[in-house]
Amino acid sequence: MHDIPIGADILAGNNQVATENRGLFHEHGVYVFNLMSSPGAGKTSLLEQTLKRLKDRYRFAVIEGDIQSDDDLQRVLKVGVPGIQINTHGACHLNSVLVHNVLGKLDLDHLDCLVIENVGNLVCPAEFDLGEDDKVAVLSVTEGADKPRKYPVMFHNARALVVNKIDLMPHTDFDLDRAVRDAQRLNLDLPVFPLSCRTGEGLDAWLAWLEQRIARARRFANH
Amino acid sequence: MHDIPIGADILAGNNQVATENRGLFHEHGVYVFNLMSSPGAGKTSLLEQTLKRLKDRYRFAVIEGDIQSDDDLQRVLKVGVPGIQINTHGACHLNSVLVHNVLGKLDLDHLDCLVIENVGNLVCPAEFDLGEDDKVAVLSVTEGADKPRKYPVMFHNARALVVNKIDLMPHTDFDLDRAVRDAQRLNLDLPVFPLSCRTGEGLDAWLAWLEQRIARARRFANH
Repeated sequence: MHDIPIGADILAGNNQVATENRGLFHEHGVYVFNLMSSPGAGKTSLLEQTLKRLKDRYRFAVIEGDIQSDDDLQRVLKVGVPGIQINTHGACHLNSVLVHNVLGKLDLDHLDCLVIENVGNLVCPAEFDLGEDDKVAVLSVTEGADKPRKYPVMFHNARALVVNKIDLMPHTDFDLDRAVRDAQRLNLDLPVFPLSCRTGEGLDAWLAWLEQRIARARRFANH
Repeated sequence: MHDIPIGADILAGNNQVATENRGLFHEHGVYVFNLMSSPGAGKTSLLEQTLKRLKDRYRFAVIEGDIQSDDDLQRVLKVGVPGIQINTHGACHLNSVLVHNVLGKLDLDHLDCLVIENVGNLVCPAEFDLGEDDKVAVLSVTEGADKPRKYPVMFHNARALVVNKIDLMPHTDFDLDRAVRDAQRLNLDLPVFPLSCRTGEGLDAWLAWLEQRIARARRFANH
């Protein structure tokens, strides 16, 4: 028999600030996604490719979450999109308060889409609502197909899954069908986008999904 | 500036047991939904109507969560579906451990769908993963259309929304469009089922969605 403490107040604390963040984003018609993966799965590469292709059509901003360094932020700024760095100084995930405290630096009135790139970690980030519309998980081919089974909270909570580095599939024993099946078993409607940020293969389907989400969020804001 | 404590370990505790529950359900090909609403919105009425119509095609069981009493369980048993009562003795929501501790009483090998009816509460239940496939929220017309705006976590986390008691719409100023719009703003893909458990209007669309989910969960289990 399990016996663990459950702290509704602490959950409620993060959720309360996440709700404030979400209210702010909605007020300004900004679509927000929280980008999560293991270290090195390609979150920033996906961001670079996405921003390059869509930045002339939509106004983006990025919040970069890292334990330390601003290397990823520099890559985003180089594409010509504004960004803000959050360094967690040891914490393995962002929370709603860390995000809330930098929102004053963003011009939400002139934004269509805010991307929050979380700390590279397949566990804890999935458990903290930041106020985003959607959580987007990235799994790379080189990590292996067993990850949905081993890190189920991430794949259960995601609203979309990008499978990155498919250009490396011929050089690995990655079983795409199995990864997709196990992820969708945890999350019956989960849209999956296999792609390669290096070759560009598969990017179009991901971009089409993202554009649809931005449009939908904006439609609600216009009411 | 906000400053609240965030306890990743406590979140992780509930999520860990939820993950165990989910693994068990998947192993047995059981589709599980967590039914949540304010007190009196009609969770048990929806269950009665759903079970009456589908119990000859699928093998159901119900876990009834209540602070005290087994009134709802008696209603379920009367329909001819097996059920188990959890009394939380004061706690305003179920958690994954309470659910885990009664799973031994269920014959998961001979089950298609397990419904977990949560404690009547529009706040805390939404924050605790029990291991379900989907959270289903019920909002009744008589509660008012402002609820998605006022209780956003529930509507953000739900995978389906039932709007119950639409037979009473002519007698209230309930604005269905507004309720749906505000809920979908929080949850861009949210399927919404306006219905009346009293007249049966709208039930078919809800039942069709539920059958699809049961079939999908079973398909994954067959691999």
